[in-house]
Amino acid sequence: MADREADPRAKLEEMGNSIVTDIRSGKNPKFVTLARKRSNIVYDAKAGYLRLGKSKEERDFVNVAQSKRFMQTVAIASKCHKFVKENLHTTIRGLFYQLKYSLGEDVDENIFSEQSESNPLIEDLEVALDLTRENLNLNANRKGVLAGNMKVLDKFGDERIEIDCAKQGRSGWAIPSDVDNDIKFVDVKAKYAIVVEKDALWQRLNEDGFWKKENAILITPQGQAARGTRRLIRKLADQGLPVYVFTDSDAWGWYIYWTIKTGSINLAYIGDDVATPEARFIGVTMSDLDKYDFLNKLTMNASEVDLKRAQEMLNYEWIKRNREWVTELERMIKSKKKLEQDALQGPRLTFVDDYIKEKVKNRDFLP
Amino acid sequence: MADREADPRAKLEEMGNSIVTDIRSGKNPKFVTLARKRSNIVYDAKAGYLRLGKSKEERDFVNVAQSKRFMQTVAIASKCHKFVKENLHTTIRGLFYQLKYSLGEDVDENIFSEQSESNPLIEDLEVALDLTRENLNLNANRKGVLAGNMKVLDKFGDERIEIDCAKQGRSGWAIPSDVDNDIKFVDVKAKYAIVVEKDALWQRLNEDGFWKKENAILITPQGQAARGTRRLIRKLADQGLPVYVFTDSDAWGWYIYWTIKTGSINLAYIGDDVATPEARFIGVTMSDLDKYDFLNKLTMNASEVDLKRAQEMLNYEWIKRNREWVTELERMIKSKKKLEQDALQGPRLTFVDDYIKEKVKNRDFLP
Repeated sequence: MADREADPRAKLEEMGNSIVTDIRSGKNPKFVTLARKRSNIVYDAKAGYLRLGKSKEERDFVNVAQSKRFMQTVAIASKCHKFVKENLHTTIRGLFYQLKYSLGEDVDENIFSEQSESNPLIEDLEVALDLTRENLNLNANRKGVLAGNMKVLDKFGDERIEIDCAKQGRSGWAIPSDVDNDIKFVDVKAKYAIVVEKDALWQRLNEDGFWKKENAILITPQGQAARGTRRLIRKLADQGLPVYVFTDSDAWGWYIYWTIKTGSINLAYIGDDVATPEARFIGVTMSDLDKYDFLNKLTMNASEVDLKRAQEMLNYEWIKRNREWVTELERMIKSKKKLEQDALQGPRLTFVDDYIKEKVKNRDFLP
Repeated sequence: MADREADPRAKLEEMGNSIVTDIRSGKNPKFVTLARKRSNIVYDAKAGYLRLGKSKEERDFVNVAQSKRFMQTVAIASKCHKFVKENLHTTIRGLFYQLKYSLGEDVDENIFSEQSESNPLIEDLEVALDLTRENLNLNANRKGVLAGNMKVLDKFGDERIEIDCAKQGRSGWAIPSDVDNDIKFVDVKAKYAIVVEKDALWQRLNEDGFWKKENAILITPQGQAARGTRRLIRKLADQGLPVYVFTDSDAWGWYIYWTIKTGSINLAYIGDDVATPEARFIGVTMSDLDKYDFLNKLTMNASEVDLKRAQEMLNYEWIKRNREWVTELERMIKSKKKLEQDALQGPRLTFVDDYIKEKVKNRDFLP
């Protein structure tokens, strides 16, 4: 768990000071972080998410093979320290350009020639210092929209801003990159949070006032959930809200669900910060074909990717132990059919509302 | 120009009634629309945007080659009539599923088997009836965010919602799919609108309070502009606001600019509704390399796509007449270098603010 109470500036300065102390006392400065390679990513069955193991990675300054990366890591830390001190945010692209610029004036050499070099070192720094990218004032891509009975206390310059997520009309509140620093969620009065894969369905449900009638928080990640949206879902679960996820019954939809629930390989280093193992899958499911006869007319052909992915998922540890998921996947593989959440609009546009309500009422979820 | 004062329900009913009248009087019902094929898309040099020419397309009911499409068009019109009557919105995907469902119960035959069949017929209907997709209650994908001194009067059910775009914190107001029906923009107090290609830069400028200090409307289409965002930009220009576009100096950035300015082939049938020929290009430009020396260290290699596209653009009628654009394109082709807007963060994160301010002050734009 990233130390969210930590003072990033103090941590960065401590790192810098310890390097200086080492050099002054003739010691070889060392940078230690947890390895983020595949073999050090574990599925924590008890906690229910992907996280890093204990394998470490060391980087020495006085080591021909490591000194360049050591220097690069320090350069990144120094820039982030500046951003934090200035209280300004940028992206990893912006950081890359600052690094490219900074050496550029005096030396005819780049610290980095490609951003693909700097990106992993930023993650190393996050892990080593037990901080997140957000603490280092580096924004990630944002995506996702929310409506419901809750308020956001945001900051704009010195001004405090209160955003009422029940008063955002057709738009909804756009979920930012960072939902931790200088931002708070208050008056969360909903009974549950529902995460809808497609923005189109979110708009459909929002138009019907679904979140108001059901007293739910209605979220769409607009496809795969961005880091900020995953973190927001985690935070809502921390407030005691049940989280239900509603996607297509296909490879992409399942991926979206499992990423929200167990986290992902890429973000395993902040697994407990972004995963919501309590999340449940509301649909659409292959077994809906038995419950709602009309859906049999509205299936689509599963693609090769869908079938391949379903086959792969059958080998996942966290799937194998769930009989219901195994049945779902086998059914798709056998029938070669998939089902989209949009199909629930077939009989009438508002059917999707009733579908969710009924599933929630009957607690008809997949684990 | 789509007739935005029109009553879509009345128009759809008129269409239906005229078909019935034709059939009853023994006439062959006919559906007439403007052709949307390439050869009927013209660049209107005087108006400054792409629009449809005068070539027409007719579809007869009693004609073996045309009767299926005639029937499909009528089925779409009938569904849209239902949506408008119910006052509910969906997407072209939702419409497709309703069409798939509706015949399905009695007949073992689909009106449509693929959505690629229904999509062009929706556009035919829009053109034939001089309506927009938004009038037919069909939402398009939405993308894009705005901050600035203006208010949005939106509707949510029977409730009127007022959204202050100066009070949206780090998020901004999410631009909806439809910015015409049941939505109004009031108290637009800004001096100009600036459209920033990348959300990352939008966030950078928003954090600095750029729109507040400059009294500008700060928009990002988040890449290529969605229909709703293009229409919003058009509407702001109609209110007398100058529109400045700020993108990368590469193929994709230029495409974003020219789409906002002259419209696009796909949306030529609503060209005057979504194009903003008054828009000016603020940067980044290849000639910035002369003005800001440090940028020479921060160029990137142009890709094959960039170079090919630059070469193509030199043949466009609307480029050829602009000496400055020709110079820009030739310079990229010769140097094989491109420039990203993110590079302006090189010397300091807030440099991008000064860059825009200076260009606006000196009216240093490309046409």
